[in-house]
Amino acid sequence: MNAEVAIPIITTYRWVPPFARGLVREVRARWAFEEVGMAYRVDLIDLPYAKSEAHRRFQPFGQIPTYSDGAVEIFESGAIVLHIARQAPGLLPDDAAGQARAIQWVIAALNSIEPFVMDLAVVDVFEADAAWSPARRPTVEQKLRSRLADLSAALGERPYLDDAFSAGDLMMASVLRGVPHSAILADYPNLAAYRARCEARPAFRKALADHLATFDDAGEAPAVA
Amino acid sequence: MNAEVAIPIITTYRWVPPFARGLVREVRARWAFEEVGMAYRVDLIDLPYAKSEAHRRFQPFGQIPTYSDGAVEIFESGAIVLHIARQAPGLLPDDAAGQARAIQWVIAALNSIEPFVMDLAVVDVFEADAAWSPARRPTVEQKLRSRLADLSAALGERPYLDDAFSAGDLMMASVLRGVPHSAILADYPNLAAYRARCEARPAFRKALADHLATFDDAGEAPAVA
Repeated sequence: MNAEVAIPIITTYRWVPPFARGLVREVRARWAFEEVGMAYRVDLIDLPYAKSEAHRRFQPFGQIPTYSDGAVEIFESGAIVLHIARQAPGLLPDDAAGQARAIQWVIAALNSIEPFVMDLAVVDVFEADAAWSPARRPTVEQKLRSRLADLSAALGERPYLDDAFSAGDLMMASVLRGVPHSAILADYPNLAAYRARCEARPAFRKALADHLATFDDAGEAPAVA
Repeated sequence: MNAEVAIPIITTYRWVPPFARGLVREVRARWAFEEVGMAYRVDLIDLPYAKSEAHRRFQPFGQIPTYSDGAVEIFESGAIVLHIARQAPGLLPDDAAGQARAIQWVIAALNSIEPFVMDLAVVDVFEADAAWSPARRPTVEQKLRSRLADLSAALGERPYLDDAFSAGDLMMASVLRGVPHSAILADYPNLAAYRARCEARPAFRKALADHLATFDDAGEAPAVA
């Protein structure tokens, strides 16, 4: 590692509601650090600060995670994972073709799968009380299932999306962790096994445990001015 | 360029309905080729073929574009643009920090902006006849406007998202081209000017013209068995 580069710092929320614990996007960055064996630090921030002008200078949408190592300052979990992957072996193949495929799967997770996962979460959680949600839900679930069926066919019987575990699997498994209702993923047994296989990796288990430990003393939601 | 690598071939649809012309995602790849001055070929495919097993071997979701140069075979417009950007100067800064920021903006376009653009297109086009669309539309438009306001603040008065035009601007401008109803983007004058600035680049104009020329003799929708 370049001597001028400090230990990277990522930001995440000090508190999130229990249903969101384990699913916060900074887990993706933690997982990447653990896979490549890089030390990192975590800066816990409060939601009001995330929405402040100071934080938006680094994350225009007022979200987390952000990454800073003194030389590189970026946001977007996908970009952070790819940047970590470029710094040490473990998440990208050595050959250009394999690297291109790993990046392809990172982007497929974020653009071809995650919007459909989020859409069902919107129906079931964020717009659960909206008048239109019950009528709309079957369409939204069907669109997600269509993408999952395609992904299931692409994965087939292989353990990972390509020859070896890569940043693409890290991101795809992270996105699949957000599929609401385990019954949906269970209808695609190879995807359910794939997610479990990725979640069983020591690097993920360490990342998730460290993430969850931040809430040990979290208690109730903080008062917001 | 490596002598073993053939001229890249991208796939796109032979025919799309008039409302989609100019917005097909292969335009992003064409634009990238033009920015870096790389020759490429286009393989026009029919929609039934896109949904075939043969095409899904390269694009699991039965979509376009795909990219193949004999050594690298990938899908996802974002991954294709980044792969083109790595092969010749013009779309990525020379320094690692600048490259990380360009990749960040590519992913921000695809994961933090495009899902909200697509959601409004779903309401206004793909689910325009659905019973829930009128009631849901204000919420969807407001979510998109919130993202556009954040992006507008991040861009400020600069001509591009970073110091110089990059793959990140190519992707962000491409995504902004999909914002339905020009009146929405007009409410964020710096974003409207940014999109127009990107669209005025000779590389984009060439890419768009070549894309539109494929429909010169397209006529009516092809008969589908």
